[in-house]
Amino acid sequence: MTNSVRPSLRENNQLRNVKITRNYTKHAEGSVLIEFGDTKVICTASIDESVPPFLKGQGKGWLTAEYSMLPRATNSRNKRDVSQGKPNARSQEIQRLIGRSLRSVLDFELLGERQIIIDCDVIQADGGTRTASITGAYVALSDAVSYLLCNSLITKNPLKASIAAISVGIYKGVPILDLDYLEDSNCDTDMNVVMSSEGLVEIQGTAEGTPFNRQELNKLLDIAEEGINQLFIIQQASLNSK
Amino acid sequence: MTNSVRPSLRENNQLRNVKITRNYTKHAEGSVLIEFGDTKVICTASIDESVPPFLKGQGKGWLTAEYSMLPRATNSRNKRDVSQGKPNARSQEIQRLIGRSLRSVLDFELLGERQIIIDCDVIQADGGTRTASITGAYVALSDAVSYLLCNSLITKNPLKASIAAISVGIYKGVPILDLDYLEDSNCDTDMNVVMSSEGLVEIQGTAEGTPFNRQELNKLLDIAEEGINQLFIIQQASLNSK
Amino acid sequence: MTNSVRPSLRENNQLRNVKITRNYTKHAEGSVLIEFGDTKVICTASIDESVPPFLKGQGKGWLTAEYSMLPRATNSRNKRDVSQGKPNARSQEIQRLIGRSLRSVLDFELLGERQIIIDCDVIQADGGTRTASITGAYVALSDAVSYLLCNSLITKNPLKASIAAISVGIYKGVPILDLDYLEDSNCDTDMNVVMSSEGLVEIQGTAEGTPFNRQELNKLLDIAEEGINQLFIIQQASLNSK
Amino acid sequence: MTNSVRPSLRENNQLRNVKITRNYTKHAEGSVLIEFGDTKVICTASIDESVPPFLKGQGKGWLTAEYSMLPRATNSRNKRDVSQGKPNARSQEIQRLIGRSLRSVLDFELLGERQIIIDCDVIQADGGTRTASITGAYVALSDAVSYLLCNSLITKNPLKASIAAISVGIYKGVPILDLDYLEDSNCDTDMNVVMSSEGLVEIQGTAEGTPFNRQELNKLLDIAEEGINQLFIIQQASLNSK
Amino acid sequence: MTNSVRPSLRENNQLRNVKITRNYTKHAEGSVLIEFGDTKVICTASIDESVPPFLKGQGKGWLTAEYSMLPRATNSRNKRDVSQGKPNARSQEIQRLIGRSLRSVLDFELLGERQIIIDCDVIQADGGTRTASITGAYVALSDAVSYLLCNSLITKNPLKASIAAISVGIYKGVPILDLDYLEDSNCDTDMNVVMSSEGLVEIQGTAEGTPFNRQELNKLLDIAEEGINQLFIIQQASLNSK
Amino acid sequence: MTNSVRPSLRENNQLRNVKITRNYTKHAEGSVLIEFGDTKVICTASIDESVPPFLKGQGKGWLTAEYSMLPRATNSRNKRDVSQGKPNARSQEIQRLIGRSLRSVLDFELLGERQIIIDCDVIQADGGTRTASITGAYVALSDAVSYLLCNSLITKNPLKASIAAISVGIYKGVPILDLDYLEDSNCDTDMNVVMSSEGLVEIQGTAEGTPFNRQELNKLLDIAEEGINQLFIIQQASLNSK
Repeated sequence: MTNSVRPSLRENNQLRNVKITRNYTKHAEGSVLIEFGDTKVICTASIDESVPPFLKGQGKGWLTAEYSMLPRATNSRNKRDVSQGKPNARSQEIQRLIGRSLRSVLDFELLGERQIIIDCDVIQADGGTRTASITGAYVALSDAVSYLLCNSLITKNPLKASIAAISVGIYKGVPILDLDYLEDSNCDTDMNVVMSSEGLVEIQGTAEGTPFNRQELNKLLDIAEEGINQLFIIQQASLNSK
Repeated sequence: MTNSVRPSLRENNQLRNVKITRNYTKHAEGSVLIEFGDTKVICTASIDESVPPFLKGQGKGWLTAEYSMLPRATNSRNKRDVSQGKPNARSQEIQRLIGRSLRSVLDFELLGERQIIIDCDVIQADGGTRTASITGAYVALSDAVSYLLCNSLITKNPLKASIAAISVGIYKGVPILDLDYLEDSNCDTDMNVVMSSEGLVEIQGTAEGTPFNRQELNKLLDIAEEGINQLFIIQQASLNSK
Repeated sequence: MTNSVRPSLRENNQLRNVKITRNYTKHAEGSVLIEFGDTKVICTASIDESVPPFLKGQGKGWLTAEYSMLPRATNSRNKRDVSQGKPNARSQEIQRLIGRSLRSVLDFELLGERQIIIDCDVIQADGGTRTASITGAYVALSDAVSYLLCNSLITKNPLKASIAAISVGIYKGVPILDLDYLEDSNCDTDMNVVMSSEGLVEIQGTAEGTPFNRQELNKLLDIAEEGINQLFIIQQASLNSK
Repeated sequence: MTNSVRPSLRENNQLRNVKITRNYTKHAEGSVLIEFGDTKVICTASIDESVPPFLKGQGKGWLTAEYSMLPRATNSRNKRDVSQGKPNARSQEIQRLIGRSLRSVLDFELLGERQIIIDCDVIQADGGTRTASITGAYVALSDAVSYLLCNSLITKNPLKASIAAISVGIYKGVPILDLDYLEDSNCDTDMNVVMSSEGLVEIQGTAEGTPFNRQELNKLLDIAEEGINQLFIIQQASLNSK
Repeated sequence: MTNSVRPSLRENNQLRNVKITRNYTKHAEGSVLIEFGDTKVICTASIDESVPPFLKGQGKGWLTAEYSMLPRATNSRNKRDVSQGKPNARSQEIQRLIGRSLRSVLDFELLGERQIIIDCDVIQADGGTRTASITGAYVALSDAVSYLLCNSLITKNPLKASIAAISVGIYKGVPILDLDYLEDSNCDTDMNVVMSSEGLVEIQGTAEGTPFNRQELNKLLDIAEEGINQLFIIQQASLNSK
Repeated sequence: MTNSVRPSLRENNQLRNVKITRNYTKHAEGSVLIEFGDTKVICTASIDESVPPFLKGQGKGWLTAEYSMLPRATNSRNKRDVSQGKPNARSQEIQRLIGRSLRSVLDFELLGERQIIIDCDVIQADGGTRTASITGAYVALSDAVSYLLCNSLITKNPLKASIAAISVGIYKGVPILDLDYLEDSNCDTDMNVVMSSEGLVEIQGTAEGTPFNRQELNKLLDIAEEGINQLFIIQQASLNSK
């Protein structure tokens, strides 16, 4: 690819600087600060030795996710959900996506009758908070699983694959990877892609302006795959360290 | 295609029987009962001569959507949102999708400073309630727009294109169209596709079991396009009648 | 009686056209669409094999009712209860009336330790939604009871009587039966009467304008009784069909 | 009438000891403690120099009512509404009745563009809290109206009539007046009657056990009228004092 | 001390007239009306033969407190918590203080596995509602404990000490005791002091205007101690009567 | 003082390691990460060019504060407020304290008609979260005020003094400073002290076990003053840097 037209000056298929800090807080079984450029999310994985009612007594586990933003994670201050009296619809949609994605790489029989609760709290937002959340939560989940293995609470690893996510979009007619806030606000089509090491897990593409066609879709998926393969490497490097 | 393996005995690329009844209730400016087989949704379009605060005084309009199910639309009774004390997360996600989709075919300058509120209330559910909702809501919206034109409240048609939606999925390894509840509960990947007459507007695909690949994705989109083209014809026929 | 002064041109003691469609939706044990003229209510009866906490372990059953309107059942759109954050006071009052009325004709010992949940959802309103709800819910309840008998879940019929309801009011000084919206908005006194085949079950009369006297009350009850006896016949005819 | 069969040993048509204490608290424009035997309700009338949105700029006033019980007003403690997260359905029904009743005796043109808020807070309950509330609230309302007249905020009395309420019921086959809790829990039919000095304003009768007939209804209304006429005298005596 | 500068004309270290009426309502095990001048609070103590989940099966008891105001207890009408949709922050803070204070004088082993619920409902407010609540609630609690002893539900008195509370503040540079509303609104520093017969239990001091120093703090505590010792005598006199 | 008996091995009057990181996130006008040992709080100050309704048009400003914890800031996971349906009572009490404290050092005339919103979000808790919040929020507030001055939105500094807070407690009979979670859970009396450079602003002391006396109170205040003077130095050093 040639000279970038992106406000960020990145190549069209270039990720932002991705940084993963494990053991970011001390109480959670898995705790990660993930940074996609200026987007910063604290992802924790908490082990809860009980399961939701619909799973009681079946010997199988579960994973749920919650997503939230600090009020001043964004350029103008957001009201807290509780002062609005109800959960934020956008947050709920994102936490459902995070939960579905991570559940797809867990073997719940091997996990046993316990629940893992993922919390993704955005402390600074600059686009791509949901993809950073999924990518970071996988590392926190891995650490929580290691905790279970090290403490002999389970004997076999319930993680079936690694999983990561990235956004792609069409900006001034050109497909670009990992959009920051400025790029996201001005693109025509934007799509979030979640992949495990086994294949596509979720795609959500929306035409913000003009509709898109099959050719554009395919180009977007090409660069998304590239980007996610790089995220797999960064995740693994982080898990191998220390 | 050959003999079907579907529980519904339909061809893999065959829609259910789709039926659209206009003027289903008398108060709304647009009111449609849409049936995708046993899935039945009342879609109304209400004109509200005011806009949300963020648009006040700009001379532009807006469209919002709400989606809900009657408690006994499903096989076992669901509690009403209000008795749960908060909106249902799944419903909110669906109504955001309906709203985004329909907004993509409206010219808000031509609509003028007024709002159209779409209500999709499922009275019987058998899979595909969100795609039936979008498809039916377009017809209700068209009737509401006609009302505005007939009453000289606007002078030019703000509808830029027609829009419809369908679900596709991989069932026992085979891509199938317009899944009913039984098929949906047993498929591996399921995807909702929203298209306007100008191209793709939204795709949301999820691997419920094993991940999917690019080839499968393309096959799913092929039959989705076919199905949506049929829905365009059915919508138009309905709008031409009476 | 002589020439009507009613906007509806009906005789003063004349019901609107009443139509009952059984098996209106497929999932509920009893499901009825009842129409009192332009007022249309979906009434379902759902069997729940559990009882509220205060009845646990006593071998006796219960019945509860919920009442709601679709947002555009009325001339101007109503906000959904959940977006208001609390149940609508008028709806709660009506559902308490529906519940009390139907409980009065059920033998809870014979029903056994299970609950029947009545849902009355108004899809189009033109006055008399609560009386149509009670009248239609009785038919749905009868079908749910038949389901219990046919499936040998109970051996004796717990229904002690039939029950129906109608509104009456004083319009331009004249007592009239079964008020539509226009009549209801312009009448002085309006009263809802619930009767079982054994006698009066509930009367709720309100002077909207000038107070009423005992003589007027008696005239209103006379025509209400007439009307309810006709409803009993229509209910029975519907239950005998098919 | 002869020897009473009532647990309270009262005559069948005998009120409990009714006591009205005006100026019970110091801040409200009207403030009354009303006692119907052991039922004690604080009724206040507060003047609010604004009206609900639907009346803005029309020069007309309004009256609203709220009803609540202290948690230990009853034999076993009730949870507060706010800890339940929603208003109590029974309380809402009662406050709607109180509001409707008092509005029927007010001329809102004469009241001018202001609102009167009635608060009825039960501090001890022993049956008949809603009828005591209406009866006491009328006295508080009269005091608030006097305040408006004395301070020249209005020039003509907007009160068109006096209003009071009483309960009647069929206890062991006998019609009785002003039921206390023990009588109320064991009666077959119970009815609340609201009358102004101009006639019947509201009747709400419910068959708790066996249905009732027209003859019984008439007997109940006979003793209700007697009782309310006594309440009118007690209200007037209280308003004349001091 | 010399001539008072207080609006109330009281001596600087003088309590308002304190009056305690036991058995104020008939249903609660302990029920007290306490008056600190024009501040009037109904304090009830209700025995609940169950404990919160975190104490189940441990043989120990608990005490919780709730605090609320009638809407027109104050000069301008307050909205009810339930119509605000959430508990009032100030009320919650006060009820937490009341609960902590009374728990400090109870031996929960001797109380046994049951809960005492304190309700403090302000019917008229003129400053010092929280201190009146604690002082009155102790008397209601004593009566509830007597009930348990008299009915042989417990054999040893779980009350370890008496407890009372008073407010102090710096008004025009002078430390004063038991502030009424007018004094409270115009003072610089105000402090609530809770003491049991064994020592200080809670102090909460706030500089409303200019900060305070250690000397001022000590003077405030001197007069608070004096005042609380008088309250102990008034409480005991009330408990000895009848 | 001699050898410590504290679990933390600190001297009795020794603060934990206090660290202040300014400009911690990029969007807020003031943004600080403050660490009191393992307690970590993000404090942001957001400028809002509007004021609450009660201040409209008066030319004066306001400051409000919100306090919250991430779900896994603590040893076991806490549910989010929004999933509880209401704000947490402890959080509300803390945020009221933070707001009152910071308002005491602001001249609202000089601030002009605008609001500063303080958000304190605990990302890791180990005792003393409210005192760390106040101490850190002062630095964030200073940065927000500098922003207003630098951008010529105000011309004179509205900050009248610096402010900080610390906890003290009696642990095994000995007064200690700045309690961590382990010390806090095992101490008898614990007290939070807020001081500005002008004197005491707020003290809140609670006897968790045995009551405390005036001598103990004075010793606690002695070491609190010492500690707060050190915090003033640390705040100032941080503000001088960069």
